[in-house]
Amino acid sequence: MPANPQRLAITVTLDYTLPCPASVLMQIAAARLPDQQVTMETLDIGGLPPAIHVAAHGGIGERSWLTPQSALQVFYQAEVEITREVVPLANLFADALTVLPADAIEYLLPSRYCPVDTLHAASMEMFGNLAGGAAVEAACDWIGSHLCYVPGASHGGTTAIDTFHSREGVCRDYAHLLVTLVRAIGIPARVVSAYAPGVNPPDFHALAQVWLAGDWHLVDATGMADPAQTAIVGIGRDAADISFLTIFGSAELNAQAVSVVLL
Amino acid sequence: MPANPQRLAITVTLDYTLPCPASVLMQIAAARLPDQQVTMETLDIGGLPPAIHVAAHGGIGERSWLTPQSALQVFYQAEVEITREVVPLANLFADALTVLPADAIEYLLPSRYCPVDTLHAASMEMFGNLAGGAAVEAACDWIGSHLCYVPGASHGGTTAIDTFHSREGVCRDYAHLLVTLVRAIGIPARVVSAYAPGVNPPDFHALAQVWLAGDWHLVDATGMADPAQTAIVGIGRDAADISFLTIFGSAELNAQAVSVVLL
Amino acid sequence: MPANPQRLAITVTLDYTLPCPASVLMQIAAARLPDQQVTMETLDIGGLPPAIHVAAHGGIGERSWLTPQSALQVFYQAEVEITREVVPLANLFADALTVLPADAIEYLLPSRYCPVDTLHAASMEMFGNLAGGAAVEAACDWIGSHLCYVPGASHGGTTAIDTFHSREGVCRDYAHLLVTLVRAIGIPARVVSAYAPGVNPPDFHALAQVWLAGDWHLVDATGMADPAQTAIVGIGRDAADISFLTIFGSAELNAQAVSVVLL
Amino acid sequence: MPANPQRLAITVTLDYTLPCPASVLMQIAAARLPDQQVTMETLDIGGLPPAIHVAAHGGIGERSWLTPQSALQVFYQAEVEITREVVPLANLFADALTVLPADAIEYLLPSRYCPVDTLHAASMEMFGNLAGGAAVEAACDWIGSHLCYVPGASHGGTTAIDTFHSREGVCRDYAHLLVTLVRAIGIPARVVSAYAPGVNPPDFHALAQVWLAGDWHLVDATGMADPAQTAIVGIGRDAADISFLTIFGSAELNAQAVSVVLL
Repeated sequence: MPANPQRLAITVTLDYTLPCPASVLMQIAAARLPDQQVTMETLDIGGLPPAIHVAAHGGIGERSWLTPQSALQVFYQAEVEITREVVPLANLFADALTVLPADAIEYLLPSRYCPVDTLHAASMEMFGNLAGGAAVEAACDWIGSHLCYVPGASHGGTTAIDTFHSREGVCRDYAHLLVTLVRAIGIPARVVSAYAPGVNPPDFHALAQVWLAGDWHLVDATGMADPAQTAIVGIGRDAADISFLTIFGSAELNAQAVSVVLL
Repeated sequence: MPANPQRLAITVTLDYTLPCPASVLMQIAAARLPDQQVTMETLDIGGLPPAIHVAAHGGIGERSWLTPQSALQVFYQAEVEITREVVPLANLFADALTVLPADAIEYLLPSRYCPVDTLHAASMEMFGNLAGGAAVEAACDWIGSHLCYVPGASHGGTTAIDTFHSREGVCRDYAHLLVTLVRAIGIPARVVSAYAPGVNPPDFHALAQVWLAGDWHLVDATGMADPAQTAIVGIGRDAADISFLTIFGSAELNAQAVSVVLL
Repeated sequence: MPANPQRLAITVTLDYTLPCPASVLMQIAAARLPDQQVTMETLDIGGLPPAIHVAAHGGIGERSWLTPQSALQVFYQAEVEITREVVPLANLFADALTVLPADAIEYLLPSRYCPVDTLHAASMEMFGNLAGGAAVEAACDWIGSHLCYVPGASHGGTTAIDTFHSREGVCRDYAHLLVTLVRAIGIPARVVSAYAPGVNPPDFHALAQVWLAGDWHLVDATGMADPAQTAIVGIGRDAADISFLTIFGSAELNAQAVSVVLL
Repeated sequence: MPANPQRLAITVTLDYTLPCPASVLMQIAAARLPDQQVTMETLDIGGLPPAIHVAAHGGIGERSWLTPQSALQVFYQAEVEITREVVPLANLFADALTVLPADAIEYLLPSRYCPVDTLHAASMEMFGNLAGGAAVEAACDWIGSHLCYVPGASHGGTTAIDTFHSREGVCRDYAHLLVTLVRAIGIPARVVSAYAPGVNPPDFHALAQVWLAGDWHLVDATGMADPAQTAIVGIGRDAADISFLTIFGSAELNAQAVSVVLL
C-alpha cells in the first residue's frame, strides 16, 4: 500500500568567499530514490565551470565537484514527491548478522564520529536485552530524555562519545549518538543528510537509518523530522560522508539559507 | 610489461574459545585480483555450519560469517601468484580531485583511526608543497625516521594521532599514520590487509594503497613488505574495515599462527 | 633595580542567573605579591551572604565561595601597582631538575589541559636542543607563527593537543600550548590568570609563567600582555585551577565585562 | 580510640638500565604520618651520588632525585606501624563546599587522568541523589560490578573516561575512575600510592582518598587493600602526581619487585 504522497519545495542558497582557488565537493541535491521522486530541480552555480557529478556514498544521491576561484554562490531549487511508507519500528526484528547484505556490514563498524567500540559496553547494558526495533526506540528515547538541543554546543570534531557525556548538541550529534548506540548492539545504522519541513531553525538536517527486518528505516533522534516528509540527500557512515560542502582549501561563509516547505 | 610472477604459500591457523555462541566475521582469504591469482586454496573451519561468504569492503576480497558455539578453529591454506607491476612512486602525479573515481572519494575523508581533519595542518606543513608521489615518499620517510616498531605499544583504540605523538606502534599504526598524512594533503589513501614474506614476526600485515596517476599503488611504511610479493586480503578506510576477525561477542585466543613463504 | 611602577585600574562586572541555588567558587581578585601591590579594592556581591575567602592554588591569590540563590551579581574594582622587573628570557638558563623547589615539581607534570606526555616527542624534536630561555622563546615564536587567535574556536574541553593540531584558539589555548611544550622539555611552566591593558577584546586573560634561573617569569604567547603591566590573579597547572568562576550547578550568563586601564 | 596497630614489612627492588644519564624522580618511601609510623627504613641506591630529597605532593611523603649515569639499582626496605582508625563510609556526610580547607579544593577539579568535567553528567545521574559516604560506596560498588581487573588492559595514557567505557584495567584505573566519579558529585577525592599486603600480584598499589565529614578516608575500588593495613606513600590529583619513577629521559626495565608482608 503506497503511502500518501508528500510534496516538498526546497531552496538552498550558499554564498562563500575563497581566499584562493579550491576544489569543493558539494552534496545538496535530493536523491532520486524509489520512494522519493525529484519532480523539479535547478542548480545555479553562478558562472563557475560546469560541475562534475559523481555518485555519492553507497550510490545514493550525487556529489558535485565545483572549482571556484574566489566566490562560491550556489542556488538550488527542487520539488520532491515522497511516497515513503513509514512503519512503526517497535515490532520490527533485527536481521541475523549472517544474512545482512554485504554493503550493510560497514554500517556495523566504527567510524570517525561513531566509535562503536568505545560505546559497546554502555549500549549493551542499556539496550542489549531488547529486540530489534524496540532497542532502537529505547535508544531514541534515551537520547530524547538525556540530551538538550543546543546550537553551537558541538564542533567539527565532536564524536558520539563527546555527546554521550556532554548531553547536548545539534542534529548531527543526535544522529551520531543514535547510530553509535545502535551499531553497538549489532544493528546496522547509518547517518542520513536530508531536508525536512519541521527542522527548526531551518537548515540541512541529519538523522539516521537503521536496518531492521530487511530494510533501512529512517529515524530522527531529535524528533523534528517526520520520515514521511523527509527528502533524503545522501547517506554515510557519519557526518564525514555526508557533508554538504567539503572544501579542499578554505572559505569564509557570507550567507547560507535552507528553506523546506510542505506543499 | 607484466612483472616477473612471484609465488607465495600461505597458511593460517586460528584457535579461539568462545564463552557463548557468537557470530564471527572473518576476512583472511587472499583476494582474487587481476594482479594476483589464487592458484590453490583450502579453508577448514573445524566442523562449524557452512560459512556464509559476502563481498568485502569495496568489493575486494571476501568476508565469511562463521557461527561457532564454543570453539573457533580455522585452518586456511593458499598459494597465490602475484604479477603486480611495481613502479617507483616518486615521479607519479596526483590526480586532480575532480577526476577521481566516485569510489575513491571515501578514501579522502576522515575515518575511525585516521582523523584526517586533525592532522590536516601538520601534514600540509610537512608535505603539502611536494607533488604526488614525492609527497607520499616523504611521508613514508618521515614515518620511517620518527617511529619505532614496538609490538604491544598500541591497542585497539590507537589512532593515527596517538601514533603521530607516541612515535611507536605496529604495522597497523604505521599504515594508519601514512594513510592519514596522505589523505590530509588531498591524495586518496586506504589501508590494506595482506600477507607478505618479509613480515617479522610473521603475522597478518597491514600496509597502505595510495591513489596516484590513475591507479592504486601499494606502499608499506614499515618497509617490511615488498609490494611485488604482497598478497592482498582486503582494503578499507582503516583497520575497522579489514579486521581479520570481528567477533560479535567475546572470545579467548588460544593460538594463532601465520606463515608466508616465497616459493 | 626596581622597575618603573605601572598602575592599573581594574573593574569587573558579572551578572548571571541561576536556576537553583549553587555554590560558586570565584577567583577574580588581583593577588597581593611582592611585585604587585593592591592599593585599592572593593568587592560588591549584591546582597549575598558574606563570601568565604580561601587561599588559591599554590597560596597565590584568593578564591571566594559565594552562595547565590538565583542571581549572581558581582562588581569588583581595584587599583594595582606593579613593580615587576622584566628580564629578557633568551639568556636565562634552565635550572637542573634536582635543584627545583618542591612546589615547582607539579608544574613539570601532565595536567587536564596540558598532556605533557603526549607532546613530549614533538616538543623535544622542535625545542629540545635549545637551552632554557632560548627554548621558551622558540616555543613562543612557533606558537605565534602557527596559531591564529580566533574567539569561539575552542571550547571547555580543548586541550593543548587539540590546539597543537587545530592551530587556532584564544588566550587560554595559547597558554596551555606554551605550558605543555615547555614542560615537555623539562622546564616547569604554569598557567596564570591576570588582568592586562592590551588584551583585545578586554577580558580575563591567561598567560604563562616559566621557571628559569631560579624564579618564575611571565610570558604571553599571544603577545597581548606586557608582563610589566600585568596584574596576576592566580596561578595553576592549567585552566582548571584558575577559572574565574567555577559553578557547582548551572548558571546563565546575562552580562560580563572586564576593563583594565593603565593609569 | 586508637585502632589495633598493624605492622607491615616492605621491600622494593628496582633494576633499570639507562641509555644515557638522566634525572629520575622516585617516590617509593612510606610516608611519615600521624596514623602510620615508619619504624625501620633503609634505602640503597647502588653507589649513585646522594639522593636529593624533596617534599612530595601536598607535603605528604617524600620524593628523591636520583642521577644515574647508566644503571638504576634501588633496594628499599621499611617497617611501618599503622594505627589508622577505619570507619564505615556509608553514614559519613559530605562537607559543604564552602567549608572545605583551601588545599582540598584542587581535588574537586579535573586533572590529567580524571576529566571530571566529562563524567559530570553520568556521575550525577548515577550517584548525585545519594548523600556523602553512601554515594562514594555506590560508586565503588558500580565499579566493582562493572569492571574486570585485567593486567595490561590499560596504558600510560588511559583516562577515567577510557576505563568507564572499556570496563577493564588495573588498580590505577580503578582509582582514577572512582576519584573522577566522586569529584563529579562535588566531593574531594585524590589518588594514593601505597603498599598493602592483599595486592595480587604484589606491586605498587593505587587507591583513593575521599573527603567526608572533615577528613580524608581511604577507599580501594579494587577491594584488594584493607585501609587499616595500607602504608601510604604519597597522594596526588592522579597518577601523574604519584608515579613511583618519573624518568626525565628513557630507561629499560630489567627487574622490579615489591613485597609487602603483614607482621
